[in-house]
Amino acid sequence: MSRTVSFTKGHGTGNDFVIVPDADGELDLSADQVAVLCDRRFGIGGDGILRVVRSSRIEVGADAAAQGAEWFMDYRNADGSIAEMCGNGIRVFLHYLLNTGLATLDAAGEIGIGTRNGVLTMTRSDLGYEVDLGAFRVESGEPLVRAKGLPVARPGQGIDVGNPHVVVAIAGDTELDGLDLTVQPVIQPEPPLGANIEFVVPADPLVHDGVGHIRMRVFERGVGETLSCGTGVAAAALAVREWAGAAAPDRWRVEVPGGVLGVRMVDGHVLLSGPASLVFSGEVALA
Amino acid sequence: MSRTVSFTKGHGTGNDFVIVPDADGELDLSADQVAVLCDRRFGIGGDGILRVVRSSRIEVGADAAAQGAEWFMDYRNADGSIAEMCGNGIRVFLHYLLNTGLATLDAAGEIGIGTRNGVLTMTRSDLGYEVDLGAFRVESGEPLVRAKGLPVARPGQGIDVGNPHVVVAIAGDTELDGLDLTVQPVIQPEPPLGANIEFVVPADPLVHDGVGHIRMRVFERGVGETLSCGTGVAAAALAVREWAGAAAPDRWRVEVPGGVLGVRMVDGHVLLSGPASLVFSGEVALA
Repeated sequence: MSRTVSFTKGHGTGNDFVIVPDADGELDLSADQVAVLCDRRFGIGGDGILRVVRSSRIEVGADAAAQGAEWFMDYRNADGSIAEMCGNGIRVFLHYLLNTGLATLDAAGEIGIGTRNGVLTMTRSDLGYEVDLGAFRVESGEPLVRAKGLPVARPGQGIDVGNPHVVVAIAGDTELDGLDLTVQPVIQPEPPLGANIEFVVPADPLVHDGVGHIRMRVFERGVGETLSCGTGVAAAALAVREWAGAAAPDRWRVEVPGGVLGVRMVDGHVLLSGPASLVFSGEVALA
Repeated sequence: MSRTVSFTKGHGTGNDFVIVPDADGELDLSADQVAVLCDRRFGIGGDGILRVVRSSRIEVGADAAAQGAEWFMDYRNADGSIAEMCGNGIRVFLHYLLNTGLATLDAAGEIGIGTRNGVLTMTRSDLGYEVDLGAFRVESGEPLVRAKGLPVARPGQGIDVGNPHVVVAIAGDTELDGLDLTVQPVIQPEPPLGANIEFVVPADPLVHDGVGHIRMRVFERGVGETLSCGTGVAAAALAVREWAGAAAPDRWRVEVPGGVLGVRMVDGHVLLSGPASLVFSGEVALA
């Protein structure tokens, strides 16, 4: 028998999500149901699903509930698989909580959101919302990246921000725009779990008013080119900061095809900020 | 100021549409608004918009109203441009009318729908709904078609079913599946208005139980490869019927990536039948 569920569609810099409210954790979405909902022609369409569930009502949310995070972001990829976190999705998730009145920020202007990567602290920011992605790691070694449209292989910088990235500097805007990312780039040596690959062009001059500026395109492992990748944006800023050396700023502005995001480094943590939009709400029958 | 409108999302063999009810013709959708609504990440997403308006309430619907067709399908492409007709869209349009109770079939089981191509007669059919696309024309000449993945240029058959098509026979399923339609095929000589290009594989044997069977992929001019193209399916069946000669059947079953469609030839008209689905309904703010 089919069941009708309410949903809201939202996006953050073009990374788009079907938000499914399920406060009491009664909706057991199968991988197939997620895939159908995320299908852009036969379903609603989206890069993933954000199920909005109380931390106390989902098994994996027990720690979050104990830490006082009322809401848990149960994120699923468009193919139905589980992902630990989504840097753009969590802003859309919070925007939905605040917009519907399900949650409010605390007296310090903060809120903790439960995820499979632990409780993440969020605040409002100039660009919309900011999330503390936690500690990061700059990897050693210089893997080589080959991509269609790049005249030669380029050395990349490995960055781990909870998931693995390789960041490659590109000569200029023309070369960045000329990359053909319909073809999967190759990393040598290939990282054991693969990696998202960010192609970045530093602005000239790199720093305006104490803020570093870069443009970027991203190829997500298992997906292809996307309009935006939140953790990729953080990794790109971290790599360019590493290349720029000791005098590099701790604030960055990153332009992606889907919009503009901000990155800050504070006390060994990396924080990502950007906009979130809710586009429409509706009802759909679950198959 | 933004205005909220109700909509329903539907598809026919994966060709998908945002249906906007506007019985009294009060909604003047600009090309930009259509493009935003059809954007798959920043809007609702769709190949086009079907505005449901009374024929008497839209200027171009005067003839349809005079012929007794109460409803007019105001079809817009995803880029906001106006299109005369859409073979898959009109089934979704009728399914919506019947589902919402806005219309019923007459005593003969028929209904006339106003379009910019005139009033088209529709009925229910085994596959869902059938639309009479009217007269067709088999063109003379044999334009050559080159496509990535085709070892040699192949002669095509020009077919006009209200819009221009060139149909090309392919050696077999392996060759059809191996075509790379991310690259635009080339027609020589190029038709003055361009053409959609259908690549077809006749089944072996071609005819089962009096019905011709073919598989097809389509490259739509200005769009690229799509899961289904209603007029293209009709053109493909007409071309294979032409090649098969005098003994060819007048009933065809055409498999496209998005599903299965039926084609009939009756009294010099071509009729297209297939399924239509409504997926979800919602509300969206117009920018």
